[in-house]
Amino acid sequence: MTKTRVLTGITTTGLPHIGNYAGAIRPAIEASRDPATESFLFLADYHALIKCQEPQQVRESVRAIAATWLACGLDPEHVTFYRQTDVPEITELSWVLTTVTAKGLMNRAHAYKAAVQDNLDSEGADPDRGVTMGLFSYPILMAADILLFNGQRIPVGRDQTQHIEMARDIAQRFNHLYGDTFALPEAVIQDESMVLPGLDGRKMSKSYNNTIPLFADEKAFRKLINKIKTNSLEPGEPKDPDDSALFDVFAAFARADAKAQMRKAYREGIGWGEAKKQLFELLNEELKPMRETYQRLMKEPAELDRTLQQGAEKARAYAVPLMADVRKKVGIGPIAGQ
Amino acid sequence: MTKTRVLTGITTTGLPHIGNYAGAIRPAIEASRDPATESFLFLADYHALIKCQEPQQVRESVRAIAATWLACGLDPEHVTFYRQTDVPEITELSWVLTTVTAKGLMNRAHAYKAAVQDNLDSEGADPDRGVTMGLFSYPILMAADILLFNGQRIPVGRDQTQHIEMARDIAQRFNHLYGDTFALPEAVIQDESMVLPGLDGRKMSKSYNNTIPLFADEKAFRKLINKIKTNSLEPGEPKDPDDSALFDVFAAFARADAKAQMRKAYREGIGWGEAKKQLFELLNEELKPMRETYQRLMKEPAELDRTLQQGAEKARAYAVPLMADVRKKVGIGPIAGQ
Repeated sequence: MTKTRVLTGITTTGLPHIGNYAGAIRPAIEASRDPATESFLFLADYHALIKCQEPQQVRESVRAIAATWLACGLDPEHVTFYRQTDVPEITELSWVLTTVTAKGLMNRAHAYKAAVQDNLDSEGADPDRGVTMGLFSYPILMAADILLFNGQRIPVGRDQTQHIEMARDIAQRFNHLYGDTFALPEAVIQDESMVLPGLDGRKMSKSYNNTIPLFADEKAFRKLINKIKTNSLEPGEPKDPDDSALFDVFAAFARADAKAQMRKAYREGIGWGEAKKQLFELLNEELKPMRETYQRLMKEPAELDRTLQQGAEKARAYAVPLMADVRKKVGIGPIAGQ
Repeated sequence: MTKTRVLTGITTTGLPHIGNYAGAIRPAIEASRDPATESFLFLADYHALIKCQEPQQVRESVRAIAATWLACGLDPEHVTFYRQTDVPEITELSWVLTTVTAKGLMNRAHAYKAAVQDNLDSEGADPDRGVTMGLFSYPILMAADILLFNGQRIPVGRDQTQHIEMARDIAQRFNHLYGDTFALPEAVIQDESMVLPGLDGRKMSKSYNNTIPLFADEKAFRKLINKIKTNSLEPGEPKDPDDSALFDVFAAFARADAKAQMRKAYREGIGWGEAKKQLFELLNEELKPMRETYQRLMKEPAELDRTLQQGAEKARAYAVPLMADVRKKVGIGPIAGQ
C-alpha cells in the first residue's frame, strides 16, 4: 500500500501556548500516527527570517518549538522531523522554481496585496514601502518546501490555501516545461472548531496578549488559569457552560464523561474558584509529564540538534535524488553521462 | 600582501565567437595572471535557466564554455574556476539576502523596467506579462554570487554596473542588520574599445547573426573570414584601414609591427583576397593550438567535470565558513554552542 505523504511546516516564531497545542500540535501528532500516512514535519526557520531579524529569538524559538513537539509525543523515528535550514536542496529547488514562476502570480498573493493596500491607505506612501523580497517571494520557497518531498496533503489554515494553490501552479508549470516531476499538492483545511479562547475570552493569540504558555512552570500556569475571565455569578448560582471561556478550555482537554460532569456542575452552581481548580488539575495532569520532558530537552540543545539532524538525513534521502532528477531535467550539474 | 579578489561570472548561453575572445576571454585570462589579484571565475548556469529552458542547450553551453576558457589558457590551478551549480551555498545565501532586500530595489532594475516598458508600449498588456520571478529577482542571486566570496572588484560591462550597486546596497543592509560581514564590491567597467565588428561590419553579436565562432573548424573558419564585408575597390587601389571591418579584426590580433605593416599594405592597395588570406593566417596561428585543445576537451566531459569540481572545492573552502558565519549571525542552524 502506498502511503499518503502529509507535509506540515511549523512557523518558528514565538513560544507555543495551550491554544496552539489543542488546535495544532496535538491533532498533528495524532494524525502522524495514522498508518496510512507518512508524515513530514519541519521547522520553517528560513521563513522565520522574513519576520524576525533578531538571531537570538530565531534560534530560541527553534529550540523551544522542537522541544515542544518532541515533548508532546512526536515520534522522530516514525515521523520525518527536520529543520528546513538543514536541507540545502530546499533553497536550490527554490531558485529553479523561481525561474519558472510568473511574477504576476506573486503579485496576486494575499499577504503581499494586503501590505500594498496598507500603504495605499496611508496617503503618499510608495505601494511597496516596507515590503521585502522575502515577503514577496516566499510562496516560491513554500512551493519548494512542499514539492521537494512530493507532499500530497498539506494541512493548513484557511488563510494559507492560496499558497498551496500557488505551489500547484508552479508544479504544473515545471511539469509542463520539463516533464512530469512533481505531485500536485492538495490543501487540507484545518478544522477551526478547536480554537481556544484566551484569558480575556477572545481567541487565544499572541497578538491579543491573552495566551497561556503551554509549558509555563506549574505555579505560573496555575496563576494564569486563575486569571481566565469569568462573570460575577456567586457560588451556588447556576452558570451557562455555553457562554464560558473557562468551560471551552476545559472541554478542549476533558474526556466526554468529565465534560458532561462539568456541564452538570455549571448548572448546579459550581463556584468559579472551584471550576478553575478543576481546570488546572485536568490540564496539569495532561501537561505535567510533557512539561518535564520539555524542560529536560531545553537543557540539551545538542540532543535536539542530533534529533533534527537525523531527521534531516531522512529528509535528504528523499530530497537529494529528487533534486538530482530536477537538475538533470533543467540541464545543470555534471556534463558527463547526460 | 593581501591580494585583491576579482570575481567574474560567465554567462553560459550560446557559443563563444572571436569577439568574445578578443573582448572578454583573452583580457580576463591575462588579468588572472596578475600576481596582485586572486581570480574567481564561474560559469553562471543558474542564471542560464532564466533565459533558456532547453536543458540540452544549457548543458552544451556549459561544456563548450568551460572547454573554451581552459583551451584559451585559463589555469585552473591558479584561478578558482567553478560552476555556480556546484556550490550549494550560493542559493542558500541568495535566500538569506532575499529576506533583507527591499522589493523597491528590484522594481528599479533596468532589465525589469525595460520589460515592463515593452509591455506598456503594447496597448492593453499586463505590465508584468512574460516577466518571470527569475528575471525580477536575479540581482539578488548575483549579489549572492559576489558576496559569498567577498569579491572586491567585479569586471562588468557598462550595462551591468547597476547590479553591482545593488549588491553593494544589499551587503550594506545585511552588515547594518547583522554586523560587518561582507566586503562592498566595486564594479570595474570593462574597456569597450575592444569590440570587434562582425561579418556585416556591425558589432559582432549573436543577435545580429554576424559572428565568427571562435572554434569553428579550420575550413569553416577560413570561409567565414572570406565573408567579411569589404567594398568594391580593386587590387592596386589604396584602401582606408580606418574604415575597414577587416582591418579592425586584424588589429585586434596583430602585434604592433604587423599592424603597421598591414596599414601600409592598405595604403599601397593590397587586394581584399590577399588581406583576408593574411587575416586568416594571423588568426589561425593564434587559435589553432587552442582549437585543438578545445576539440580534445569537448570529447572529455568527465575531465571537464573533474576540473570544475576541483574548482568548486576550492570555492567552497571559502564559501562554507563564510556561510556558517552568516547562518550564525542570522540565527539559523545548530542550536548548541551558540
